[in-house]
Amino acid sequence: MKLNIALLAGDGIGPEVIDQAVKVSDAVAKKFGHEIEWTPALTGAAAIDAVGEPYPDSTHNICVAADAVLFGAIGHPRFDNDPSAKVRPEQGLLKMRQKLGLFANVRPTFTFPSLIDKSPLKKERIEGTDLVFLRELTGGIYFGKRGREDNDNTAYDTCTYTREEVERLARKGFEMAMQRSKKLCCVDKANVLETSRLWRETVQKLEKEYPEVQVSYEFVDAVAMRLVQWPSSYDVLITENLFGDILTDEASVISGSMGLMPSASLGEKTSLFEPIHGSYPQAAGKDIANPLATVLSAAMMFETAFGLKDEAEAIREVVNKSLTEGVVTEDLAEGGNAYKTSEVGDWLAKNI
Amino acid sequence: MKLNIALLAGDGIGPEVIDQAVKVSDAVAKKFGHEIEWTPALTGAAAIDAVGEPYPDSTHNICVAADAVLFGAIGHPRFDNDPSAKVRPEQGLLKMRQKLGLFANVRPTFTFPSLIDKSPLKKERIEGTDLVFLRELTGGIYFGKRGREDNDNTAYDTCTYTREEVERLARKGFEMAMQRSKKLCCVDKANVLETSRLWRETVQKLEKEYPEVQVSYEFVDAVAMRLVQWPSSYDVLITENLFGDILTDEASVISGSMGLMPSASLGEKTSLFEPIHGSYPQAAGKDIANPLATVLSAAMMFETAFGLKDEAEAIREVVNKSLTEGVVTEDLAEGGNAYKTSEVGDWLAKNI
Ligand SMILES: CC(C)[C@H](C(=O)O)[C@@H](O)C(=O)O
Ligand SMILES: CC(C)[C@H](C(=O)O)[C@@H](O)C(=O)O
Repeated sequence: MKLNIALLAGDGIGPEVIDQAVKVSDAVAKKFGHEIEWTPALTGAAAIDAVGEPYPDSTHNICVAADAVLFGAIGHPRFDNDPSAKVRPEQGLLKMRQKLGLFANVRPTFTFPSLIDKSPLKKERIEGTDLVFLRELTGGIYFGKRGREDNDNTAYDTCTYTREEVERLARKGFEMAMQRSKKLCCVDKANVLETSRLWRETVQKLEKEYPEVQVSYEFVDAVAMRLVQWPSSYDVLITENLFGDILTDEASVISGSMGLMPSASLGEKTSLFEPIHGSYPQAAGKDIANPLATVLSAAMMFETAFGLKDEAEAIREVVNKSLTEGVVTEDLAEGGNAYKTSEVGDWLAKNI
Repeated sequence: MKLNIALLAGDGIGPEVIDQAVKVSDAVAKKFGHEIEWTPALTGAAAIDAVGEPYPDSTHNICVAADAVLFGAIGHPRFDNDPSAKVRPEQGLLKMRQKLGLFANVRPTFTFPSLIDKSPLKKERIEGTDLVFLRELTGGIYFGKRGREDNDNTAYDTCTYTREEVERLARKGFEMAMQRSKKLCCVDKANVLETSRLWRETVQKLEKEYPEVQVSYEFVDAVAMRLVQWPSSYDVLITENLFGDILTDEASVISGSMGLMPSASLGEKTSLFEPIHGSYPQAAGKDIANPLATVLSAAMMFETAFGLKDEAEAIREVVNKSLTEGVVTEDLAEGGNAYKTSEVGDWLAKNI
């Protein structure tokens, strides 16, 4: 199979971790007889520096032409203390999501037995946790009308959802639930918000099409609690953009394996795969960042974008092996036995 | 001193826990030579049943005439599966907040050494946690324009804030920070929302008036993570209504003492005090609910509404004593030695 992949390394540690994912992907492609064509493109602060905007048209065209996008991380401290700066790396992210139509952000949270003690939560609370959030990514208050009124004295943001937007996301949730334990939780704030009531109505209608799926409806504040109390009680959760932003980040720290969590953002045509961690600028260029989340994002890419399950499984296996054998970067190393980012990548590629 | 207090027991376990807070308040009043006049009034499902609405004018008039309001809990399962029901107990809550102008919800989270093992988090993560959220309670997306458009196909909610609303809340935060460790965290989503940028601007301006307070600005998704990872790194946090709803609930489960957490909602004229737990309908009428959160809310009332610090301290001391001596309800009892709700109240009143 010929795989045409856009490669968006981004800022900070992005380029370093992406390099390892490329090595591992190439190794798995070679083993299974595929050919990957990587097309690099600029995003984030790197793109602002080069061409003045964080998601230039040239990059968009490369993404549209590709079968999938592998993404590193964006964000640079230079922009951090000025949230109202005209051009910010994050705007590139939002523009990219919208222009590529990446409407469903898939964020699994699971535990690695060897890392369970890193969790801030007690072991008995998180054992067996294996949940996945489906966050709506191109609608809601992120993309509604906003502005100032009343002589700059009042600010407003608008949250909007259409039935079609909700149904498209919810349907993915039901399908995912059918492939897992047939449990779906719809997270909303239907006791207050009109958009949440539309979500609930739409999901309730879909229930008829998926009679085997057991659906629960929970308020976002209750989920924020139960995620910490009993994360293993959840399986598939669907929610709108802003709630998803908050809850997926909350969920990411419970497993103790945050540095390893991959994600996918699915569109009708293109999909994008990226680690959930940020650009970690303090570590940039030091060859110390943990590449495993990006490598596991590549695994998600093989499986989700190309339907190549064995290839994905091969990557996951070698990642597990690196963990058990202690071939890990300093964030996971015990007793000073840390490998470099590039060494971990080399080891994974060799052992696949 | 003569204390004129409106008593809103509400639904579920509300009446039972309120009864204990009344006993304890009366005992402390007697000891310190005050006289309390309690004026009961209906709210929630109880009020819907009696007069058809959850926060009737008669109740509002009683609250306005009082020096403070002590509140139990509202909510009834009968309304739970119908989020769009015309009359819901929660609407009473929102109407009450708005009509009484309760703009600042104060939610402390702290640990009781004897309960620390009940936390889902590891002991070393939560030891020393003593933070307080100030949640804006009468603005934002809770009270903005909402509705349907496009033939019922689109729903929208509007989040609005004025500079005055932000400043009023933020000022309370700065003042609270001055009385504590002089650390303030402003929680927003200024990389996306216009209302958040107004928050940031307004808080940044206020910084000049409180040069001793060290202010940090953090995104809501980052706070959702750090609250689980290092709760003890926070002190005073200020935030808007919806973020506050989610984060205060998340924070409430980290200490392991959720059943004990009090809260206050402050207005320009009246203030209201209530436990953070819900109406817990399954336990209603069984004399088993833990009354300590309501008793501690009464302590907050003595201190905040009446400036009676010694009285508040006396209540907190006797609550601590009940915990160390094991005079607790079944949720906290070890080895079957559970006291009834009313027995705990009697014991506290006697030992004050
Ligand atoms: C950077 C920011 C705009 C973005 C978001 O809020 O969606 C980020 O937090 C994320 O979750 O990918
Ligand atoms: C019941 C609901 C409307 C309310 C809110 O969202 O404010 C509750 O969750 C709370 O936090 O007091």
